Amino acid sequence: MRFLKVTLAYDGTDFFGWQLQHQQRSVQQVLEAALQKVTGESLRVTAAGRTDAGVHALGQVAGFSTAAEIAPDAFCRALNANLPDDVLVLSVAEAPQGFHATRDALRKRYRYVIQDDKPTDLFSRRYAWQLRHRLDEQLMAEAAQALVGRHDFASFQGAGSPRKGTVRNVSELSVRRATGQGSERIVIEIEADGFLYNMVRNIVGTLEAVGAGKQPVSWIADVLAAADRRVAGATAPPHGLFLVSVEYDGM
Amino acid sequence: MRFLKVTLAYDGTDFFGWQLQHQQRSVQQVLEAALQKVTGESLRVTAAGRTDAGVHALGQVAGFSTAAEIAPDAFCRALNANLPDDVLVLSVAEAPQGFHATRDALRKRYRYVIQDDKPTDLFSRRYAWQLRHRLDEQLMAEAAQALVGRHDFASFQGAGSPRKGTVRNVSELSVRRATGQGSERIVIEIEADGFLYNMVRNIVGTLEAVGAGKQPVSWIADVLAAADRRVAGATAPPHGLFLVSVEYDGM
Repeated sequence: MRFLKVTLAYDGTDFFGWQLQHQQRSVQQVLEAALQKVTGESLRVTAAGRTDAGVHALGQVAGFSTAAEIAPDAFCRALNANLPDDVLVLSVAEAPQGFHATRDALRKRYRYVIQDDKPTDLFSRRYAWQLRHRLDEQLMAEAAQALVGRHDFASFQGAGSPRKGTVRNVSELSVRRATGQGSERIVIEIEADGFLYNMVRNIVGTLEAVGAGKQPVSWIADVLAAADRRVAGATAPPHGLFLVSVEYDGM
Repeated sequence: MRFLKVTLAYDGTDFFGWQLQHQQRSVQQVLEAALQKVTGESLRVTAAGRTDAGVHALGQVAGFSTAAEIAPDAFCRALNANLPDDVLVLSVAEAPQGFHATRDALRKRYRYVIQDDKPTDLFSRRYAWQLRHRLDEQLMAEAAQALVGRHDFASFQGAGSPRKGTVRNVSELSVRRATGQGSERIVIEIEADGFLYNMVRNIVGTLEAVGAGKQPVSWIADVLAAADRRVAGATAPPHGLFLVSVEYDGM
């Protein structure tokens, strides 16, 4: 059996998330359907991150094993020829025996985009959290530093899919303002060895409260220390979130 | 009777164009429905440009007359509260008696966006013509100059909706490369006193043949002189096109 690693981008707008769900359009479903057309096999794929409905990916990673002997580049082209236009396979590569995209991921990087200028930019409404009030990105960047490092992120874990351990190592958390193409955006990037359910969206919602002046910079450390979801900010909406990349050992 | 001028933006993706059509979702239909909710009147609006299915607007102008005595700013807010999220009224303003958005327009400006880098940017697929080959924007800009001025644009008139006169005055036609947010785009802007059916998309399709090296720069002048649609390039797809603004006398 041969193990393959697929890196793919998708526009999450018209998907009910990554995971296969009964009667709903999911990324896993369309990818497995394309794999079946290309290989003739009924394959099951695993993903690095099971993104929710509306969440996008620039570099999601999925893994599977197959008996097909198609070369990686030809595999990539064949998959794209069988995928809808909101999913794009960026690469197919050989993976070590037993490769598992979820378990083997060392680090993942997410990006969250907030648009805080008026008037609303219609053309970004599926790809950014649009706010009518201006945020102070300096305060947000300062507050974010309290979350960098190894911490118990229980305060930022969403209900519905609890993990056993809630300690994660956040290796980077940056907040910057990006100006260009006539719109103002705040771009938050976060890299960690793992994420709790809704962790990025809960961190963003909490940072937004600081950026909007509703809470002081020091509040973030208090929220983290409380280890209680009820003290953190609201969950930011899914459509501003992008899974950027996934890192594996030696791949 | 009071005449009003509405400036609005819309994402053309989910519309069968501006114009009211039986059983199809059109911008005119959702705008007239919002007007009915706000004024209680059954109003008919006219637009500066009847954009086709998939074509977007940053500053379309629509006009109508009403007995409603709502102040312009409140009118704008009330309309937005009654419009779907792919249409946004930017302003409502008083217009002169007898104002007609189509007839009174002095100049209109369109923008066409081409993305010519790889890999395909999924998130722009509704808002740009995505090509897998690189275009030479300098050649396109040079070729475009042949079209500036008062000319017979019969070669660039699409079938299906012929105008009697085919002479138009193009006051500006620029082609530039815009780099930013990780993607390469060619932005074509064209301003004229009027446009024939599909004129912008036919000009863009013709300039693309020059940018791709399929035709020499001098070909554009030949196409123009022929006054025959069959000699021009293909019609560029609708989703790269934006109606940017409309100019009126003294408004």
